[in-house]
Amino acid sequence: MPRRIVIIGAHAAGVDAASAARKTDRTAEITLITDEKYAGYSRCGLPFVIGGRIPSFSNLIVFSPSYFQMMKLNLKTETKVTKIDVSKKTVLVAKNGNIEEIPYDSLIIATGASAFTPPIKGREKKGILPLRTIEDGQRIDQAIREGAKTAVVMGAGLIGLETAVALQERGLKVTVVEMLPQVLPAMLDADMAKMVQEMLEQKGIRILTNKPVEEFLGVDKVTGIVAGGEQINADLFISAFGVRANTQLAVDAGVALGETKLIKTNPRMETNVKDVYAVGDCAESIHIVTQRPVVQQLGTVAVRQGKVAGINAAGGYAVFTGVVGSAVTELYDMQIGVTGLTEAAAKRAGIETITGTVSSKTKAEYYPGALPIRVKLVVEKESQRIIGAQVIGGEEVTQRINAASFAIQKQMTVRELAKADTAYAPPLNETWEPLVLAAEMVLMKLR
Amino acid sequence: MPRRIVIIGAHAAGVDAASAARKTDRTAEITLITDEKYAGYSRCGLPFVIGGRIPSFSNLIVFSPSYFQMMKLNLKTETKVTKIDVSKKTVLVAKNGNIEEIPYDSLIIATGASAFTPPIKGREKKGILPLRTIEDGQRIDQAIREGAKTAVVMGAGLIGLETAVALQERGLKVTVVEMLPQVLPAMLDADMAKMVQEMLEQKGIRILTNKPVEEFLGVDKVTGIVAGGEQINADLFISAFGVRANTQLAVDAGVALGETKLIKTNPRMETNVKDVYAVGDCAESIHIVTQRPVVQQLGTVAVRQGKVAGINAAGGYAVFTGVVGSAVTELYDMQIGVTGLTEAAAKRAGIETITGTVSSKTKAEYYPGALPIRVKLVVEKESQRIIGAQVIGGEEVTQRINAASFAIQKQMTVRELAKADTAYAPPLNETWEPLVLAAEMVLMKLR
Repeated sequence: MPRRIVIIGAHAAGVDAASAARKTDRTAEITLITDEKYAGYSRCGLPFVIGGRIPSFSNLIVFSPSYFQMMKLNLKTETKVTKIDVSKKTVLVAKNGNIEEIPYDSLIIATGASAFTPPIKGREKKGILPLRTIEDGQRIDQAIREGAKTAVVMGAGLIGLETAVALQERGLKVTVVEMLPQVLPAMLDADMAKMVQEMLEQKGIRILTNKPVEEFLGVDKVTGIVAGGEQINADLFISAFGVRANTQLAVDAGVALGETKLIKTNPRMETNVKDVYAVGDCAESIHIVTQRPVVQQLGTVAVRQGKVAGINAAGGYAVFTGVVGSAVTELYDMQIGVTGLTEAAAKRAGIETITGTVSSKTKAEYYPGALPIRVKLVVEKESQRIIGAQVIGGEEVTQRINAASFAIQKQMTVRELAKADTAYAPPLNETWEPLVLAAEMVLMKLR
Repeated sequence: MPRRIVIIGAHAAGVDAASAARKTDRTAEITLITDEKYAGYSRCGLPFVIGGRIPSFSNLIVFSPSYFQMMKLNLKTETKVTKIDVSKKTVLVAKNGNIEEIPYDSLIIATGASAFTPPIKGREKKGILPLRTIEDGQRIDQAIREGAKTAVVMGAGLIGLETAVALQERGLKVTVVEMLPQVLPAMLDADMAKMVQEMLEQKGIRILTNKPVEEFLGVDKVTGIVAGGEQINADLFISAFGVRANTQLAVDAGVALGETKLIKTNPRMETNVKDVYAVGDCAESIHIVTQRPVVQQLGTVAVRQGKVAGINAAGGYAVFTGVVGSAVTELYDMQIGVTGLTEAAAKRAGIETITGTVSSKTKAEYYPGALPIRVKLVVEKESQRIIGAQVIGGEEVTQRINAASFAIQKQMTVRELAKADTAYAPPLNETWEPLVLAAEMVLMKLR
């Protein structure tokens, strides 16, 4: 009898798990279940559709129905899993009022995360719009088409800022409200975040930090908020406070959570329950530097975990080797990236650090079109190992982050980085690579 | 008495040596000697001035006279070193017929390399123009201004192709003639080089491989060549056969060459002669992968070696850790990079390899403006370590080369790369980084 693999979730983690399972076991019966209308699309692309850089939400569907057919994956959309029974090894699903029991040999939980709004006075009112699904995106797009002229984005994380830029590109007047003292608080140190905030303000986005949202105003529908004592009215209110992992189904089935409140797994992505795996935004990861569990809800982590679980669920063998938290975005023409620990995160983890920051150019000084770039390196003082890097610049930020990520993963010391062999050509780089110069800055402090 | 440091050469290697020496010893007397009119300029930028992308040759002067003043460096231009006397610890210099003897405590030989034309029949004729110095560049620029309409570039290495593109951008009809069967033979494997050749041909450059230059035709001045039996006439003839290290002065002084015929040094860049260092294009390097001496005449290597020699010559301590041969260029909108060994170079070194090649995009498939990118990974079969990478693409090639370079330098295995944590955002990358996909390709062959 063919192996039955059931996957709850059909986006990055779920589809990559299914694909890996199919490649591992050609005969398995593989079923993906999602309560959404659309499967296999890129959530990360949503702000760029709203901003108009990507023509349509349908462009985001990376895995079309024909992909699922070709890979012989049984996809159930708009179908809700109501229960996992780990003793019977079944999941109960509901679609249009019909209940079905689906048996599994291996189960992969890829239930993801949902946007959430904190318990703020008035949050039951209509018109607080998150941006997590295509439907969310369509709702925001519709509001703009209907004439919204002003927007408040609540939360200055990645999604918040990407959405703020998108709305401004659509012609809205945008205010971003953030409870913490800086933008991108989970991604950047305050000194680097300042550059981002200044750029956004120059572009005309109003940014209020240190301003927790205290109340939603309006009768049925929100017409304003109170944040840090200030009332701000607008036509559109985006909830970008953050996301919460969807773990209830797992918890109800006896699947254990870790100290991060996400599902705990071993390196094979197995939960505490036999033949049950968890991957993606609902599962925690081990950080390669701290060796502690962390919440790392990123698309790249989701696909890597999904692949490992898919191989294992199909009878193969694979391990997930952990995360360093490499992330990147583009706001207007500014690229912003991070890998490893920020100085602040290292401090919270009790790690003594030395940092080095340099400003340079993306091409030879004399080459027309050279853009500014700034690199901050975080080094563990005792081991002299690189444990983090932040890069903000006009181009080639992503691959600098990847280069630094490789350095962290391979425990490169700051001295090794200062002597590293790098590539150079006038149209493409400076002779001395900024990452190398930042390492030199750290060495000067170590002397 | 202050330490006297004499540096022969005043470009990348020489100036970086002088700067590092100054930072190490604030009181040293530091003298740089060059027979050129201009010091401290970027040779790598010459083709881009000819092509018109950089306005003027003077833009290439990275270290202006004021820099030498500020760093208290004694610069002697248009001054020829005629002899090094290692027993007296002096150099003899000549300027405008005047001879001077300059004593040194430490001597750094940074005599570089010169363009050379092989002993081909007729090479004594006028009009065979190399591109190594600003004066060379001015000569080529002058010929274009005087109405040259057609050009033959002899040699399809980096300088040859960069110059061919520059001439074509200036409106000339260009033919490139290469003795070997492919373009960029020292940089790329044949399969990757094919992409470059096809692109150049589409842009209208004629490329003839397997065609050694056999004769220069014309009375006093070259008006044509015979290559592989074919006669090609043109207005302009660029000698891009390659460069030869300037080692005669060192050899005459008793400084030993290595097996590559370049000056041999230890990791502190010391030659066999006490207090005499050699750096840059005249000095050989140890390759980190093969641990063998190699000829690596690159600007990045020059500055790194220069820095090490400068520190040591000034009484400090620094070692040069070797090269992996990271190099990159841009031809039209195609970026081309290499690090480590090509498959062919590995074979020549007796290393058994497995390779993986993938084609992908530089942004999410659905993101407008995604450009093609191709990655070839070279892995040592026995150790499964990454020993080389070649990347050709529309953007972010340089930093992918640096990321691969770090992987090689830190002995990353192909399995580690296949599991590496990388950064992703739709405008900046694909979810699965092409370097990681190429590693996956290699793993499939290893299974």
